Formats: sequence, C-alpha cells, structure tokens
Amino acid sequence: MANVLMVGSVALDSVETPHGKVDRALGGAATYAGIAASFFTVVQAVGVVGDDFDPAHLEFMRSHGIDTAGIEIIEGGQTFWWGGVYSADMNSRETLFTHLNVFESFQPKLPPNYRDTPYLFLANIHPALQLDVLGQASGAKFIGLDTMNLWIDITPDLLRQVVAKVNAIFLNDEEVRMLTGEHNLVAAGRKLLTMGPSVAIVKKGEHGALMFTADGLFAAPGFPLETVTDPPGCGDCFAGGFMGYLAGADDVSDSALRRAVIYGSTVASYNAEDFSLDRLRSLTEEEVDLRFEQFWQLTSFER
Amino acid sequence: MANVLMVGSVALDSVETPHGKVDRALGGAATYAGIAASFFTVVQAVGVVGDDFDPAHLEFMRSHGIDTAGIEIIEGGQTFWWGGVYSADMNSRETLFTHLNVFESFQPKLPPNYRDTPYLFLANIHPALQLDVLGQASGAKFIGLDTMNLWIDITPDLLRQVVAKVNAIFLNDEEVRMLTGEHNLVAAGRKLLTMGPSVAIVKKGEHGALMFTADGLFAAPGFPLETVTDPPGCGDCFAGGFMGYLAGADDVSDSALRRAVIYGSTVASYNAEDFSLDRLRSLTEEEVDLRFEQFWQLTSFER
Repeated sequence: MANVLMVGSVALDSVETPHGKVDRALGGAATYAGIAASFFTVVQAVGVVGDDFDPAHLEFMRSHGIDTAGIEIIEGGQTFWWGGVYSADMNSRETLFTHLNVFESFQPKLPPNYRDTPYLFLANIHPALQLDVLGQASGAKFIGLDTMNLWIDITPDLLRQVVAKVNAIFLNDEEVRMLTGEHNLVAAGRKLLTMGPSVAIVKKGEHGALMFTADGLFAAPGFPLETVTDPPGCGDCFAGGFMGYLAGADDVSDSALRRAVIYGSTVASYNAEDFSLDRLRSLTEEEVDLRFEQFWQLTSFER
Repeated sequence: MANVLMVGSVALDSVETPHGKVDRALGGAATYAGIAASFFTVVQAVGVVGDDFDPAHLEFMRSHGIDTAGIEIIEGGQTFWWGGVYSADMNSRETLFTHLNVFESFQPKLPPNYRDTPYLFLANIHPALQLDVLGQASGAKFIGLDTMNLWIDITPDLLRQVVAKVNAIFLNDEEVRMLTGEHNLVAAGRKLLTMGPSVAIVKKGEHGALMFTADGLFAAPGFPLETVTDPPGCGDCFAGGFMGYLAGADDVSDSALRRAVIYGSTVASYNAEDFSLDRLRSLTEEEVDLRFEQFWQLTSFER
C-alpha cells in the first residue's frame, strides 16, 4: 500500500439544485478527491484556506485519515467561495459567483515528507502551479492530472508541458475535444496517448467513462441513479477514488486500472446522492464494496 | 432455434452525412431489423413496397435467409421514400421529405404459416396496425415493440394497449421520457415495467443501452467507433439483432437477454460504418463474434 498526495482547491460551496440548497458547505477539488481516496489508502493534501475555514472541516478530513499538514491557513484571509445553481433537469448549471480569495495567490508548497509520495493527483489549478508541484514531487511515480476549459483556452502551451509529464489525464468530453481538436471521442482519446500520458480517461457524466491505454479501451457506464441530488465534486471523486485505489493496491496494471475506474465511479455515484460531501461522511467501506459488486452485476454478460 | 417475424416498413432512403450521400438506397425498419436478425436465425418479413422497388433488394434479403413472402408488391404503387441530411457532428438530422406512398395504406397481412412464429418484432408503425398484427399472430410467445414520438403524442391510449400486450419494448431516451412522464431514466425504465413488458430497453445512441428486467439492470456501452458514416437504421439493427439472437437461441433467460443486448449493439455498430445496409452486406458471422468478444474486452473487469 502506498500513499496518495492531492494538490488543489479546498473551498466553500453555495449550491442550489431542484432538491434543495446548501450555503458555504465544504467543497473543493482536493477535498472531494482526498475524501474519495481515503476509502482506499492514506491521503496527504496540499491546499490553502482562510481563517474563516471551520476547523471542524479539517477535523473531518483527519478523521478520514487525511494528513492535513499541507493545508495552509492564511490568517485574515477568506476561503475560496463558489456559488452556483443547477437547472431543473440538472443538465446545466449557472455560476452565480466565484470568490477565489486566498486561492488566487495559492503557491503549493509540499512538506518535505510529501516529496516522495508515489501517487500524486494534480487537481485543476493553473498549469504553471501544476508544473511547479511536479518539480517539488521528485519521488512521484504515478501522476494524475485534471484541468479545465479555461486553461486549455488561455494557457495551451503551458498545459501541454504538464500533460507531457503525467501518467494519467482526466478530462470531460468537452475538454478532451478542445485539447485534442478531435470531435470523435475515440480519435480524441487516442490522440491524448500521443501527448504524454499512458492512461487517458474521458469522463462522460451520467454516461460513464472511457479509459484509453496501450492495452486498449475500457468503458464503464454511469451508475444508474434514480435521484441525483447534487452533482458538484463527482469528477473529483472519480479521480480521487481512481488514484486512491491504485495507491492502496500499489498496482497500475491494466486490470488494476479497470478496477480503479469502477471504484472511482462508485465513490462519484454515492457523492451525487447528497449535498456537499455529506453522503461520503456516512459512506462505509462495505457500501463501497457493495456498489463495486453492483457495477459488476450491471455490466457483466456471459461469453 | 426458432424463427423471428419482422413487421414494418420497407423503404428507400436518400441520406446525406458529412461522409457522403446515397440516393434511394435500401432502408426501412423491417429491412434493417430483418437483415440484423438474419445473422442469428431464419427471418420472416411483412411489409409493402411499390413496383418501383428493385427486385435485387428482395433477392438480397432472400440471400440472407429472409422469407419475403409477406412483402406485398403494389402494382403501380411507389415505395415509401425518405430523405434527410445529418449535421456536421452527426448529432442531429433534418428530414427533407417523407413520401409514405404505398406505406400510407399498409395493412399488414400475415401469411398463415407466420401466425405461429414464436418471436415477433413490431417495428414502428401506427399502433392500430400493431394491435391488428397482434390479433393475427396468435402463436407469438415473445413480442418486441418499437414506436416513435409521433404515436406517443397523438395516439397515447392506443399505444398503451399495445405496450400492455408485448414482452419487450425498445425506446430511445426521449421516447421513454415522453411515454412515462419521468425525466430520470431509471425511474422511467422501472415505470415501463409496470405497463406490461417484462423487458424495457432504453437506447441511448452512442452512449449505449440500458435494459430493465425483473432481475435488475444491464448497461451496455455504445461500441466506440472512430468513424460513424451513416446512423440511420442503427436502432432497428439493435432491435433486430436482439430479437434474432433470442429466437436463434430460443432462450429469454436473463443471461440470454444480456447477450442479446450485446449482439444487437454489435450489429448496430457495424451498420453505422457504411451507408444504407452496405456494411451488413459484407458482414460475416465471424465479424459478429469478433465484436461480441471486443465488447467483452471493452467492459470486463476483475472482481
């Protein structure tokens, strides 16, 4: 078993969906990915918050075995705060406000004992910062990368430098089309494999995920949920569960990568069932194993 | 091994996609479904054409083991002719014209030796005609049903009478939402099972298919194709391959139903590779088995 290091945002989210709303609830990519990974291994987190950040949030992370020594608290600073509202059919969302606050000047600093952590997830931040983290993480052996349409649009060259240095990349279908210039997802996924990563994952939301590797293609459906209460964080939970499973197993073989996709999908699907990280607060390892088994029932057929 | 009977349109299609175009090429739901099923069993077809219909088309069907005795040829009549053009990304299409011609007064008449055919597929036609066919097909023991948004909209009560009498229903995501009034596909699929069928299949195009049965849920991905040349007929190929496989195996157990979804997806994915039924003309049983195996490679993971 190996540790996994998560670098990215720790935030507060105000979200409204047809099923209700929450105000300044715990959020952030490193938070979702870290909690998701904590079901499989020991997690380290690097991020930044203001002194308005409720210490109970850090205590919650630590209760899940997350080492929070890398989360910097800026005295007198305000935590990254995002607000958004989802449409009635949950298929689109509108951002109401984005207060980057202390996250605007985030300079990730890895504590010395994090530099040799073998599994590293670079959640979505400016690619210049991701490059800087790669320079610090001299002992990382399997690196996962997320990004967003903004960086593909305004810093494509810098982003390509990061992409060239990582082992796995996680993009949604819109992002993969933007980054590769290919509309067809099969062509786009194959092109990603020529840009550096040996593992390219296309996240398709409710339609599941496609994973491209040298060994071929793996398709996982979205878990069919009767009620989706709160979608934010599902992509980060997918990546976090994926990276956490690989680290826990300390195995990046093709069969481990396939199981990692299913475990990532498992945690992401649970996350959608309640607001913020609330479903993950009560989630048990038994429930994780149960839904992994349900995924098998959902997809298996006899030859 | 049992026979399967297909009742529906036999047509000529003029289609333009970003990959080229064809004029008055062989089409129609019963044609696609019949050819798809012919890889698995003996097929009977009931439809109607005009005397403009090239006898070579009927010869092609017979060369695939399809009994065409039920395809009526109207002297002096013109065959159903549809024209449409696909958008650059193939995600939408515009109908240029629909000349129903002899199909407008189609009155399906089952030859006496078709009435006991155990597997029956009712392709998309007016639900009153589907009801009439059900009255004639006294020996059918497993009946599959397709329909379209038009009938859900203008003849909902009649359609519900048909739905109540069939074993399996094939709808796309838009149609299943319209018919059930449920936006969520899981809720919608479960509701279909309360309306009569014991098997409800939601076709999601490139995103695959979901099958609801009393035994649970089965999800199949779309086969990841690098080039989609011509989408028309894929839904009918799916249903035809599904029904044909069940008839060939004469088995409607849950494990046979799951394999039927994969065989249906297999034929549908090949069909998209060339215009009209051209890819199916050269398709071999070995290629069908190869892609079935590729679906297994695409979806399997170790517990």
